Amino acid sequence: MSTSAAPAVFHAINPVDGSSLPETFEISTAEDVHRLASRAQVAHLTLAATRGVDRARLLRAIADGLASNGEAIVSRAHLETGLPLARLQGELLRTTGQLRLFAEVAEEGSWVDARIDEALPDRKPLPRPDIRSMLRPVGPIAVFGASNFPLAFSVAGGDTASALAAGNPVVVKAHPAHPGTSRLVADAIHAAVAACGLPEGTFGIVYDQGTTAGEALVLHPAIRSVAFTGSTAGGQALMRLAASRPEPIPCFAEMGSTNPVFVLPGALRERGAALATGLQTSFTLGSGQFCTKPGLVFVPQDGSDAFLHQLQEGVNGLGSHGMLTPGIAERYAASVEARRGSGAAKWLAGQPAGPSGPGASATAAVFATSLPAFLGDPSLQEEIFGPSTLLIHYGALDDLLAAAASLHGHLTATLHGTDDDLAAAGPLVHLLETRVGRILFNGFPTGVEVCHSMVHGGPFPATSDSRFTSVGTRAMLRFARPVCYQDFPEASLPEALQSGNPLGILRMRNGVVGRA
Amino acid sequence: MSTSAAPAVFHAINPVDGSSLPETFEISTAEDVHRLASRAQVAHLTLAATRGVDRARLLRAIADGLASNGEAIVSRAHLETGLPLARLQGELLRTTGQLRLFAEVAEEGSWVDARIDEALPDRKPLPRPDIRSMLRPVGPIAVFGASNFPLAFSVAGGDTASALAAGNPVVVKAHPAHPGTSRLVADAIHAAVAACGLPEGTFGIVYDQGTTAGEALVLHPAIRSVAFTGSTAGGQALMRLAASRPEPIPCFAEMGSTNPVFVLPGALRERGAALATGLQTSFTLGSGQFCTKPGLVFVPQDGSDAFLHQLQEGVNGLGSHGMLTPGIAERYAASVEARRGSGAAKWLAGQPAGPSGPGASATAAVFATSLPAFLGDPSLQEEIFGPSTLLIHYGALDDLLAAAASLHGHLTATLHGTDDDLAAAGPLVHLLETRVGRILFNGFPTGVEVCHSMVHGGPFPATSDSRFTSVGTRAMLRFARPVCYQDFPEASLPEALQSGNPLGILRMRNGVVGRA
Repeated sequence: MSTSAAPAVFHAINPVDGSSLPETFEISTAEDVHRLASRAQVAHLTLAATRGVDRARLLRAIADGLASNGEAIVSRAHLETGLPLARLQGELLRTTGQLRLFAEVAEEGSWVDARIDEALPDRKPLPRPDIRSMLRPVGPIAVFGASNFPLAFSVAGGDTASALAAGNPVVVKAHPAHPGTSRLVADAIHAAVAACGLPEGTFGIVYDQGTTAGEALVLHPAIRSVAFTGSTAGGQALMRLAASRPEPIPCFAEMGSTNPVFVLPGALRERGAALATGLQTSFTLGSGQFCTKPGLVFVPQDGSDAFLHQLQEGVNGLGSHGMLTPGIAERYAASVEARRGSGAAKWLAGQPAGPSGPGASATAAVFATSLPAFLGDPSLQEEIFGPSTLLIHYGALDDLLAAAASLHGHLTATLHGTDDDLAAAGPLVHLLETRVGRILFNGFPTGVEVCHSMVHGGPFPATSDSRFTSVGTRAMLRFARPVCYQDFPEASLPEALQSGNPLGILRMRNGVVGRA
Repeated sequence: MSTSAAPAVFHAINPVDGSSLPETFEISTAEDVHRLASRAQVAHLTLAATRGVDRARLLRAIADGLASNGEAIVSRAHLETGLPLARLQGELLRTTGQLRLFAEVAEEGSWVDARIDEALPDRKPLPRPDIRSMLRPVGPIAVFGASNFPLAFSVAGGDTASALAAGNPVVVKAHPAHPGTSRLVADAIHAAVAACGLPEGTFGIVYDQGTTAGEALVLHPAIRSVAFTGSTAGGQALMRLAASRPEPIPCFAEMGSTNPVFVLPGALRERGAALATGLQTSFTLGSGQFCTKPGLVFVPQDGSDAFLHQLQEGVNGLGSHGMLTPGIAERYAASVEARRGSGAAKWLAGQPAGPSGPGASATAAVFATSLPAFLGDPSLQEEIFGPSTLLIHYGALDDLLAAAASLHGHLTATLHGTDDDLAAAGPLVHLLETRVGRILFNGFPTGVEVCHSMVHGGPFPATSDSRFTSVGTRAMLRFARPVCYQDFPEASLPEALQSGNPLGILRMRNGVVGRA
């Protein structure tokens, strides 16, 4: 506070050529973090008293703000991430669509799971009091922006949208790979908060190239929960930090996964070459930098010639892929090199990496191994973030049960087969239900729908808490907790619990769900 | 396994006279824990495939078994805990009623939150796949029995009932203060599991006087979640243990609280003496050994004469209270002595402790202090487990906002007042919503209804996770996680997600809730 030194700043990097972009970003100090978290704590009580329609208005105002400044946001994101413009335009639409979907849920109001058990004054041996409960917001949420989705999983992404929809203030830690995009999006949120007459503390943002500001945020006593999408190392560090507080808080870390794919014999017979093309598209989509990239593919030993031929041909013909940051490109190259050198899997397809230039780029790599080798080397199950996948050749269908049993938690699992294949694979599906959050049939896991039924989650280490999802409207449940009111007079009850049901929401009344 | 030594055993203690009861209980070894946890893991897949009606049958069979052996169970619990027979008969009814309520919810089936978003093949730019999701059981649950509810929060208590209802196997760690009761209840569960044709691994139980078997259970890789009701020290140790695993798991620890009561001026004027009588009954109920005992009572400085007179008169006339274990009685006496000696509060009412005999007993103690003294000494907010409470005298209503802001998490908060008092206390209520799980008006927090709307939970340190409750039907949500099925053919979907809705449950279909 009394320092007269110039604030520390950093620049964004253009990953295409490694150049520094001109704008500067001040690194948030401990005082900044304290000011924003404290302001959020004050805003909590005001936000908790808002109605769903008020929060819907805010979310729609943010969506409108992003849309009206869309061109600038998308150009800046393109400069900072190297992602194609068309992809970023799509991601912006996904982000505004997501905000509007959460607005609908907040406005409709039934998500609060209102429950009323009316008094039974004549019950023996003791009368039953009147008991009512509903979900209420938990308080300020620390949201960490992700590198791979500069819009949909960053400043105004699903974590922020679901936290605000549930009535919580948000303090975002901007991802250092796209600070300019973050600032433009934050400007839209600040403007929407002001336009809706909500307290300033509804939203705040901190910047840092390193981990200091983010750590201070997670440790701040006003913060009630953490949401993160990113690396396993980063997520686990935040989990430990959240658990180490004098008052531990929940930490929702989505740490990615390797997303096993099971090609069943019927599918291979029917459409081996088409499967190879689909797989290639999926594992190289976004340069393989999606949490749901298929990184493990179980393929029958027999009858896989057409599949393998098509995959080799296709992947060998690919050029280089732009990567999000020089650091991600380096880690990818090192992981591929390590796998190639380990002897646990053989190199099947892909160009060797070219000479490294100033920009962040990568070449696709497909490895192959046997099921026994896979079962014997747990490192083969680890995610390589980038355009690489691993084929595992299996013999009989029963072998897949051992493979599935060996899996740790992943976000998704996919089966390719005929309906008969799937019916025969019942035990495999039941095992996969215990290992992943989403099971796909005859599709590819990249591309996560934002809808009511989506589950983007899964057992550890895919996420820190498999009981929740970070995509889809169930994501709001991460940031709410039930509160119970016993024998409250009507006038002092929240509207959602008043007997006349002024909000017209679905409620459970004496065990029966309805709008009565 | 190769040891020929006799197994280590322990005996139950009769707390009334400190005598050892004759039966022996073998201390479970690491091998026992491993066998039961592994068996539970195998049972998980079978249980996950059961229908709600199957699990309802199991829960009702357990309830029937407990009821038909009720006399033996209650007598044994009386011997081991010293709790009155009438109280234990009531607790048995509560326990069987709880099992039957969870059976109803499992049977009805809508609790799985089934959601269906149908395919949109013509959507631009990309078609939407068919996406469906529902809650599925997480797997084997470690349940720790509580000392203060030998039936309702122990072997077949709310944790076990909710875990089984959701489709999870359970391994219980019996509380060492009532191992005989635990064995009788476990026998009823084993018989019900066998009668329902479910796998043996559906239920297991381990015994230990110390913490070794319980720790081994929490650390076993097959265990997916932990449920505990007991002390802060015990709960926090389990939280740390669960978070320290290579694969961290959720730990639901209900660690008790001090349950602040706010007496507002109008209530004091209208019924000061009656309030004192009600408070006395509540804080000495079960010898003050309830998680919801009111241990902090904010009383206006002015006009409290009748209240104080009645409380002193009543409490001074009380005899000694039997306690659950000699250890609890010792810790209670030491805490009361420490508070009396600390100078932070003055002794207001209660008999001095008598000479300590062989049995476990205690005398009630009421302390009083000022609001500034309370705000200055956080130790006054700590729970004293036993028949003691602390009055805090306050001046103006606004002072209560500072008091509420200083509170850490508690299970309950209570307001006594007129309807006008409550309306004037709106800001206080809003603050309390952020501090507790249940807010009562003109009642006492002891006595927790088992119903759909109950919340027996609250922010840390009352519990480890304020987003859940350990009492009421929402308790099942602790032990389930959403799983999503994308583009599955009808025949391979779980029944709850099939288009024809063969179970007739409430579902969200394209955003609209109904039974269609």
